[in-house]
Amino acid sequence: MPEGNTIQLDFRNCDPAIVGKKLGIDTTTIESFADNFTKALAQMKRWDEDGEYGFLSLPIQTEAVDNISGIIDTIPAGIDTFLHLGIGGSSLGPIAIQKALDNELQLKGESLFNNVIIHENVDPEGLALTLSEIDLSRTIVNVVSKSGGTIETLATFSIILRKMKECLSSDQISERTIICTENPQGVLSGLAGELKAHVMPLPGNVGGRFSVLTAVGLLPATAMGINPRRLLSGAAVMRQQCFNATGPHDPCFLFALIPYLLAQRGVYTHVLFPYSDLLGGFALWCRQLIAESLGKRLSRSGEVIHVGQTPIASIGSVDQHSLLQLYMEGPDDKFFTFFEIEKFRSDESLEDMPHPGLEPQHKKGLSLGRLINAELSGTADALAQAGRPSVTIRIAELTPETLGQLFYFFELSTAYAAELYNIDAFDQPGVEASKKLTLRYLRGEQ
Amino acid sequence: MPEGNTIQLDFRNCDPAIVGKKLGIDTTTIESFADNFTKALAQMKRWDEDGEYGFLSLPIQTEAVDNISGIIDTIPAGIDTFLHLGIGGSSLGPIAIQKALDNELQLKGESLFNNVIIHENVDPEGLALTLSEIDLSRTIVNVVSKSGGTIETLATFSIILRKMKECLSSDQISERTIICTENPQGVLSGLAGELKAHVMPLPGNVGGRFSVLTAVGLLPATAMGINPRRLLSGAAVMRQQCFNATGPHDPCFLFALIPYLLAQRGVYTHVLFPYSDLLGGFALWCRQLIAESLGKRLSRSGEVIHVGQTPIASIGSVDQHSLLQLYMEGPDDKFFTFFEIEKFRSDESLEDMPHPGLEPQHKKGLSLGRLINAELSGTADALAQAGRPSVTIRIAELTPETLGQLFYFFELSTAYAAELYNIDAFDQPGVEASKKLTLRYLRGEQ
Repeated sequence: MPEGNTIQLDFRNCDPAIVGKKLGIDTTTIESFADNFTKALAQMKRWDEDGEYGFLSLPIQTEAVDNISGIIDTIPAGIDTFLHLGIGGSSLGPIAIQKALDNELQLKGESLFNNVIIHENVDPEGLALTLSEIDLSRTIVNVVSKSGGTIETLATFSIILRKMKECLSSDQISERTIICTENPQGVLSGLAGELKAHVMPLPGNVGGRFSVLTAVGLLPATAMGINPRRLLSGAAVMRQQCFNATGPHDPCFLFALIPYLLAQRGVYTHVLFPYSDLLGGFALWCRQLIAESLGKRLSRSGEVIHVGQTPIASIGSVDQHSLLQLYMEGPDDKFFTFFEIEKFRSDESLEDMPHPGLEPQHKKGLSLGRLINAELSGTADALAQAGRPSVTIRIAELTPETLGQLFYFFELSTAYAAELYNIDAFDQPGVEASKKLTLRYLRGEQ
Repeated sequence: MPEGNTIQLDFRNCDPAIVGKKLGIDTTTIESFADNFTKALAQMKRWDEDGEYGFLSLPIQTEAVDNISGIIDTIPAGIDTFLHLGIGGSSLGPIAIQKALDNELQLKGESLFNNVIIHENVDPEGLALTLSEIDLSRTIVNVVSKSGGTIETLATFSIILRKMKECLSSDQISERTIICTENPQGVLSGLAGELKAHVMPLPGNVGGRFSVLTAVGLLPATAMGINPRRLLSGAAVMRQQCFNATGPHDPCFLFALIPYLLAQRGVYTHVLFPYSDLLGGFALWCRQLIAESLGKRLSRSGEVIHVGQTPIASIGSVDQHSLLQLYMEGPDDKFFTFFEIEKFRSDESLEDMPHPGLEPQHKKGLSLGRLINAELSGTADALAQAGRPSVTIRIAELTPETLGQLFYFFELSTAYAAELYNIDAFDQPGVEASKKLTLRYLRGEQ
């Protein structure tokens, strides 16, 4: 189990000597942000101390883990499925964890449940598919909504509750339902009382997209057989490293600063490009974190600024066969973050692969893992030669600890970026209009 | 089974009266492209007649379907899994079909195989997961590479072939292996000869991203239990409608023209936004089609232009809780294509959903399908009120016919867009540099 920091950032392909002057970022420019770094770090430490934004101190808190153990211990015998209902900040963290780690555990058979299913959407055909895969009489239902009033989650749960009532007594429903919410006045808290369900309180000072290290992520992780303390301990390592940083070359600050500087030069798109199927969920989690935190109309001082790079989730090498043509030849309005896994948990030899470009001596020791990482390096270099900058995040191995490090790194870096833009990273005022108009359609007023 | 065209385009939210002048497109502007439309349609008809680009006439050809029946009929007893190996143009069409239609068939139990698995990537952990789900002694392996030299597909197949040899005789391997390729000189054709495998030839005049209606898509569709003639007949309906169009208000041309005009006004991003889990694969297929066809450095006359909107795959309503904040408040550099399914193949009542914004009379007749479509309308309206234009594609019901219509519509519209940009829609010169640099890494030269 790795103890120290085992993810490294390689910023070489941002160097003007490699990527050219137009989009290259030189050391002098970075150093001119020394004051911004000092102020931003001080701000984070203040928020950490006064609890204004609770995500900062989650790695060193363990109440949630204790609460989770309490609930897991009361699960009745004969349950084989854990159904997680939530959307956005209540689903993307659990999906990121499941994609990255559950695979390993499935192969090893350590899960607490045969199935951990995360259901997000209100597509009736999608729900029919989920329901066809489970037996509700053998299922724990975990309903997650910070506000307690998320219409999608209430809709899906009301359907599932109706079906639970068809096959379960009210006592059985009580012991098979968990409600995770922050708001004691919300609809979900009312339902929890009626049903006498388990209640898992969520902290009020942690926004949905920063909540993966609360019960939102840690409870389904535990259901998957992942020790939640391992996620937290990885995040704690990253917290300590970042809090001890001394200048703007700190990777976490730099990962905010470089995209910020590139945005001033017309780079409107940030491509998250893991060369790993298993980080596909993490890329979607990042996408929400970046889009909702940094896509803002107003600065903190009320100026209309309409900022926010568009994050894109790509998967390598698959998307070399889909998006790379555009990335290489289209407008130079993109910045790339590659994710490289240095040691895969399994690998296969390619010594007997027929390929016209490779002689037998080249195939000696060649493996699938070496191929995918060579594709990453080849693609990053090709983009750099075309004047398109990138950073590569190297992860020693996918483990709960490295995933915890990544979560904390991205959260803190996003908060740093908001300081540079002078915006509020923690609100989302733009989503209200759509909710209001939707209700008008439902009420027949539109 | 629907006979006529059952998808409709609603361009209302592009009207300057609704979305404002900055990004609204008025009728006069559209009509000024009458000559471009006439020339572009004539070009398509010429290509259709002389076979220059074969995708245009695929809906009215049936050789592939006959070849597929021939191969399916020879599958030995005891096979329960169809494993499709391919990447990019060889995987995205099959994935789009599977996500949209296999669901229905799984619920109905009509599939030819228990499992149809599409494997794309060279991630060793992803491959381990796929291999853990199948028994190779009961599996047909379908290897798809137009060029016959795609390194990812050769890599994965060489590993799987090694494992097949551990549990199967060479006769068994022959009858359980299908090779789909265009190039008789390619590595795959050589392997097919050595293995005495089934060979399914692919047409030389159809590029990968336009190949979903060849054996690339139709063979796995057949394995899923979908009648491939239904996909083709839907596409044929769309072909006929488009070929009979008489002016630039033709939806297929308009769907090329509007994003093209918006690109001149700084709209660099095209968000594909189905409100359906099942169209998630289709959105990824579109993403490749648009990015590779329209992301180009050079015009046909050799001018350096670096064009190409960035396509993004979003899923509604899920991504309202992830990307909508950015879409509403970030830069106004985005155009949205919503996909609405009018009739879902299953639905659930929401009459007993608790929600503070809805009184009992509002919930009468309310269903999950109505909720997701109200969210679509509310979101499209909110974006329009913020000056962000969109189009809504309304699909009567997800069927093989409507999916066939959608494939043809998007392919032809993309070819129209390339005419407007004066670029080659059918090449992808930008991907070569990465391939060369990857081989240098593999050869130890980098």
